[in-house]
Amino acid sequence: MGPDAKLFLMSDTALPSLTEVASRVKSASYVLTEVNGEQRTEALRAMARCLERSKTEILKANISDLERGRRSDLTKTQMDRLTLNDQRFEAMVAGVLEVARLPEVVGQVVKGYTLPNGLSVQQMRVPLGVVGIVYENRPNVTADAAALCVKSANAVMLRGSSQAIETNLAIGDAIVQGLEDAGLPGEVVTVVRDTTRDGAIEFMRLNGYIDCLIPRGGPALIRAIRESATVPYVLDGDGNCHIYVDKGCDIEMAKKIVANAKVQRPGVCNAAETLLVHEAVAREFLSDVPSFLRGVEIRGDDETRRYVLDAMVATEDDFATEFLDMVLAVRVVKDLDEAIAHIRRFSTGHSEAIVTNDRQAAERFKREVDAAAVVVNASTRFVDGNQLGLGAEIGISTQKLHARGPMGLEALTNVKYVIEGNGHIRT
Amino acid sequence: MGPDAKLFLMSDTALPSLTEVASRVKSASYVLTEVNGEQRTEALRAMARCLERSKTEILKANISDLERGRRSDLTKTQMDRLTLNDQRFEAMVAGVLEVARLPEVVGQVVKGYTLPNGLSVQQMRVPLGVVGIVYENRPNVTADAAALCVKSANAVMLRGSSQAIETNLAIGDAIVQGLEDAGLPGEVVTVVRDTTRDGAIEFMRLNGYIDCLIPRGGPALIRAIRESATVPYVLDGDGNCHIYVDKGCDIEMAKKIVANAKVQRPGVCNAAETLLVHEAVAREFLSDVPSFLRGVEIRGDDETRRYVLDAMVATEDDFATEFLDMVLAVRVVKDLDEAIAHIRRFSTGHSEAIVTNDRQAAERFKREVDAAAVVVNASTRFVDGNQLGLGAEIGISTQKLHARGPMGLEALTNVKYVIEGNGHIRT
Repeated sequence: MGPDAKLFLMSDTALPSLTEVASRVKSASYVLTEVNGEQRTEALRAMARCLERSKTEILKANISDLERGRRSDLTKTQMDRLTLNDQRFEAMVAGVLEVARLPEVVGQVVKGYTLPNGLSVQQMRVPLGVVGIVYENRPNVTADAAALCVKSANAVMLRGSSQAIETNLAIGDAIVQGLEDAGLPGEVVTVVRDTTRDGAIEFMRLNGYIDCLIPRGGPALIRAIRESATVPYVLDGDGNCHIYVDKGCDIEMAKKIVANAKVQRPGVCNAAETLLVHEAVAREFLSDVPSFLRGVEIRGDDETRRYVLDAMVATEDDFATEFLDMVLAVRVVKDLDEAIAHIRRFSTGHSEAIVTNDRQAAERFKREVDAAAVVVNASTRFVDGNQLGLGAEIGISTQKLHARGPMGLEALTNVKYVIEGNGHIRT
Repeated sequence: MGPDAKLFLMSDTALPSLTEVASRVKSASYVLTEVNGEQRTEALRAMARCLERSKTEILKANISDLERGRRSDLTKTQMDRLTLNDQRFEAMVAGVLEVARLPEVVGQVVKGYTLPNGLSVQQMRVPLGVVGIVYENRPNVTADAAALCVKSANAVMLRGSSQAIETNLAIGDAIVQGLEDAGLPGEVVTVVRDTTRDGAIEFMRLNGYIDCLIPRGGPALIRAIRESATVPYVLDGDGNCHIYVDKGCDIEMAKKIVANAKVQRPGVCNAAETLLVHEAVAREFLSDVPSFLRGVEIRGDDETRRYVLDAMVATEDDFATEFLDMVLAVRVVKDLDEAIAHIRRFSTGHSEAIVTNDRQAAERFKREVDAAAVVVNASTRFVDGNQLGLGAEIGISTQKLHARGPMGLEALTNVKYVIEGNGHIRT
């Protein structure tokens, strides 16, 4: 245990300031650039072992959080998200081991060339440094994010909710033990103890310490980040996803895709929220809605309501809403242009799909629709790190800088220029 | 001329609000996704033609700006930056044609694979949408940035300084003419007329319109962006660049490199500002400073001052300063670790160089020093878009998200996922 670690324990009674904590995490992040990928992967395995060994304490801490949650009247959904039962615990540990098995990304040469003057130029993948995560109740994020960050040679500051603080700290303790077992500084993964609102603002303004902030939460958190953050961040925003059913498409395929995108798991960001139907197929497609979208509340425009008799009237608000529920807004459009215009107006830049047999329509949709993912003849539900073969994901970026779409290990890196010469000077 | 363009002319007397202007630029940006690369390249050629044709008016506008500048006591440097003489004008036009000749980046498939379930996945390079540039006096930035943005299928809002407003508007008018000649909406390149301070703040908060803000200016601008911007941005920050001269290196090579990095053009961001010398070569290297760094003011630590007799005392502030002048801070370090620690403390993340013959030292420096560019045995002056073969650059990013280092066309794009199936649904 180094002198820094001792200091940390000593100051456990008098909590160190957030800047002091961040400064130690920054120092620890440098150590990660000095070790190789095998050592980091071994640290992940040690983290998994220590989590398993601390299972009793972690689940006990979770029960304490849950009791506090019950007393403070958390909603059923909030309580569910907070819960870490045996099955979820094992999935969490398995997740860490899965990340351990992912291929190394750090040190990859993304581009390499030699200039006419003989200078060698490489763009090499390097870690970001210190990643900050702000998240809500799910305590498994603590281990997931820690694993992805360590694998990509980043240190991480984890700021979860006050509701989950005991569970998060217990998970953090086990992870720190694993890091130290593997010879790495425990500060590489730091669970932030201060879960106050002021603390959150301070966290978003740790310039010089946090190299990338990734918020995982609802619109209120996103708004707070936009207004207050001064550190660079990547937004994991809403998914108001559309499916456009084109004229002349395979109607049966369209039904299957729309049903899957809406119903298979309505509470997630890559589920469909609005259906747009070309007027030429509106009657044929929409008349069958009660059968292929059984149990889904339809909110439609006038044309839709001619075919879906029990549909409610869709307001502008409905088209702008990410329902995350068994509700679907529906509009009949006169052509692809109208569909694209609608999507441009209401899209949150997550995932947008078209079902079509018209190659030209597909090409236009791919080029002209601006989203992290455009999907042709498949369900929007595929826009997910695991489904796309990235392994795990630390979020889905809906912004246009840095990462876009599901963020795996590569999103936790950037490239640096490595330029080598033999006494080259500029003339 | 569409109805929008007419509206723009009509409201020329009653200036449209910044949001109205931004909304038109956003609409125009969509048109760029509908045309191909050849059309955009042709638009650049038309822009160059129209600039040439409007040369008299543009230079006249510049003279008017310069007269106003003289009356308002601009400094000599500011006046120089503001000046668009014949030679600079021709270089500006040539720059537009050079960008026209760069290879197409939009539509490139960066990654493409087929999943075991048959789903085709591509990551395709796409424009960012609307780029916002905030810049200071140099009016050539107006044409440079416009060319890079149009080539990469982005619309651009250009907010220059009030000092250069007449020149910028004249350049903008010529560019708009070129765009329209090529059948593109003139709003694709929009010079913002409001150059007030409040206007700048409003500009930084055009969420939903500006997809990427690139500020080009000094520390005050960077601070304002950090504090007030709510749109995503890429910072082109300071360059407090270091050169570390290692023990056992080729001393003559080191002298050549240090002299080049400091003296060849001291006023630019990739010039060296601090020299670190291993104590084993301090005497040999530093004793010769008066000859190879003739005319450079040296500010050194105690050890340095033993060998450079007329050196001033270096303060902590000196090591933190980007002099942009014939001044160099110098420190003798006891080893590579101390050099890396110094750089970590004072680096602005731009360019850091080592001169060494020790392969291991070079490898450690490359891995452990965190900067946009690490340079081995060459001058920091090579960290430049043109020198590295990117063609032109729109800035040099010193941040760690999105682009890092010199930003060429690729930095003005991101990738989107294009997923194609044949009725694929998730089970």
